[in-house]
Amino acid sequence: MTTVAETRTAAEILAWSRETVEPTMRAAVDSLPGSMRRVAGYHLGWFDAAGEPLPGGPVAGKAVRPALVLLASAAVGGIADTAVPAAAAVELVHNFSLLHDDVMDGDETRRHRPTAWTVFGRDAAILAGDALVTLAMDVLATATRGWSATGPSAVGILCAAVQKLLDGQSADLDFELRADVGPGECRAMAEAKTAALLACACELGARGGRGAEFRVAHLRDFGTSLGVAFQVVDDLLGIWGDPSVTGKPVHSDLRSHKKSFPVTVALAAGCPELLDHYRRPGPCGERDLRRVADLIESTGARAWCQDTADALHADALDHLVAAGAPGRVETDLRTLAAFVTRRDR
Amino acid sequence: MTTVAETRTAAEILAWSRETVEPTMRAAVDSLPGSMRRVAGYHLGWFDAAGEPLPGGPVAGKAVRPALVLLASAAVGGIADTAVPAAAAVELVHNFSLLHDDVMDGDETRRHRPTAWTVFGRDAAILAGDALVTLAMDVLATATRGWSATGPSAVGILCAAVQKLLDGQSADLDFELRADVGPGECRAMAEAKTAALLACACELGARGGRGAEFRVAHLRDFGTSLGVAFQVVDDLLGIWGDPSVTGKPVHSDLRSHKKSFPVTVALAAGCPELLDHYRRPGPCGERDLRRVADLIESTGARAWCQDTADALHADALDHLVAAGAPGRVETDLRTLAAFVTRRDR
Repeated sequence: MTTVAETRTAAEILAWSRETVEPTMRAAVDSLPGSMRRVAGYHLGWFDAAGEPLPGGPVAGKAVRPALVLLASAAVGGIADTAVPAAAAVELVHNFSLLHDDVMDGDETRRHRPTAWTVFGRDAAILAGDALVTLAMDVLATATRGWSATGPSAVGILCAAVQKLLDGQSADLDFELRADVGPGECRAMAEAKTAALLACACELGARGGRGAEFRVAHLRDFGTSLGVAFQVVDDLLGIWGDPSVTGKPVHSDLRSHKKSFPVTVALAAGCPELLDHYRRPGPCGERDLRRVADLIESTGARAWCQDTADALHADALDHLVAAGAPGRVETDLRTLAAFVTRRDR
Repeated sequence: MTTVAETRTAAEILAWSRETVEPTMRAAVDSLPGSMRRVAGYHLGWFDAAGEPLPGGPVAGKAVRPALVLLASAAVGGIADTAVPAAAAVELVHNFSLLHDDVMDGDETRRHRPTAWTVFGRDAAILAGDALVTLAMDVLATATRGWSATGPSAVGILCAAVQKLLDGQSADLDFELRADVGPGECRAMAEAKTAALLACACELGARGGRGAEFRVAHLRDFGTSLGVAFQVVDDLLGIWGDPSVTGKPVHSDLRSHKKSFPVTVALAAGCPELLDHYRRPGPCGERDLRRVADLIESTGARAWCQDTADALHADALDHLVAAGAPGRVETDLRTLAAFVTRRDR
């Protein structure tokens, strides 16, 4: 029986995930040619712009995806060490996509530091992203040569997730130019851009841990629901979040005309004044943005999104229960699910 | 004994390579999400900008790399069909690098058509490149699951070549900003940017064909020497080539301040007027460029490059002989080597 003292907080789970995976990621990145290593190590929060270790220690990402790989493996009774290369590969893919997305979106800040392309140039950031996605495949291919020759290959599963992620990013960029994006398209985009890699993390962990097919499927679906829930919550915070908590400027998603969940739901509700805002792209003032946020809320879109996030979170937990993980692992995955959907704040 | 009638021309070998590999490449690209498929198919010369088949038929690349995979496999007695996925994977990687290089270099024409980024935008070309490198790994991982679990994995070999290629592109971009690039650095760059993928093509073919280790090594070294020889010849043509044959503007490499083999050799010879040109980047007129070309030639750099290309071509043929391929396969590889180094013109 799990006692209260044994229950880990989300911060503890993520710290454990980072510590478990970092040596493999460091060794992999160290194997890169110097030009790629420097940019990748900067982006990963290990080095400063000159390639020196950061004085205050690493500024690492949250490591949610590696934690999902490690815990999904544990959920089916897998040996912890065998999941580490897959966890590193998924995190490398995540960082590849951040490097390229920052170039495409023109974002200048990530994890409270200047983005890699602003420091090293656009070309260097593209090349470092290319290096990280290639490295991810290399790490995974080397580690999974012993996998059974039937069923999907680990590299095949990761490649399929990358293709979905690219398709999602493509749709996201495309949506910024359109005023007629519906909630269905928005959900498909979130499933591709955000949920595919979380589902892949769970599947790789569970499959690598030699879990039965039904348990692999439930853990993958846990990842999918969690991924979409995360995106809905992130979209709510992109309009109504406290900038001191989110680290983004207030109303940032409204400013960029992003077709986030609340926006597409409000547009589908048929609000002419709102449609007008989205048909007239271009900069607008803080008062306009506040008005747009109020218009969206007046259509019921904010409440709809909160309900949807709750339903998706509940879906995810249903799949988690069906996967039949040992008590302590299930508790950790619940804690992580609460963290990802900001239920623990 | 090979008779004259049985000897294939380079054009025949390349047409055979294209026809052998294209169905696998088409099936792979067809599996991509629509947004990636459209840009990749345009870049590969299959579709027009609207995604329709080109009226005059495909405008495909030369397919030198797939031919190397297929012939290296045949050289060690491999079964032709088993080499096809590796041949497709190498060609997909080549096209990934072209898509991204065109974005970085700002090149507006490739194979006499507007480059993908000029038609679909920079972001779409970056994403399509990402999709192709991922697809290459997927195709290769799926096809090589039966490979022995000892020795290097096929995906590992391809990933190592991609990392070298990225490092070479990074150096090439860096060199444009420097006037002190030596011939040694230039050679290391060419080995990375150009030769690594040709060597990888030969190695994957030979290893997939279950060739003995010494034959694999000689075929790989054949690819490396051939790759550097190709680059030296390409660099000669970039200055003194006939634009109607090369398809590039006259003196194009001088205009872009590219640190090609002849330039680095001439700079190392210590020509102050030439150094001045490379320390003063910026546009310059046709008369200036003709003067720079003459200066380079006056240092003996043109003759040096021609000798070097000859020596590398001879090196490649030595490795080919040592690999002990059947007569007809060796003849095809000799023909291809002559084509790649423009000895057949």
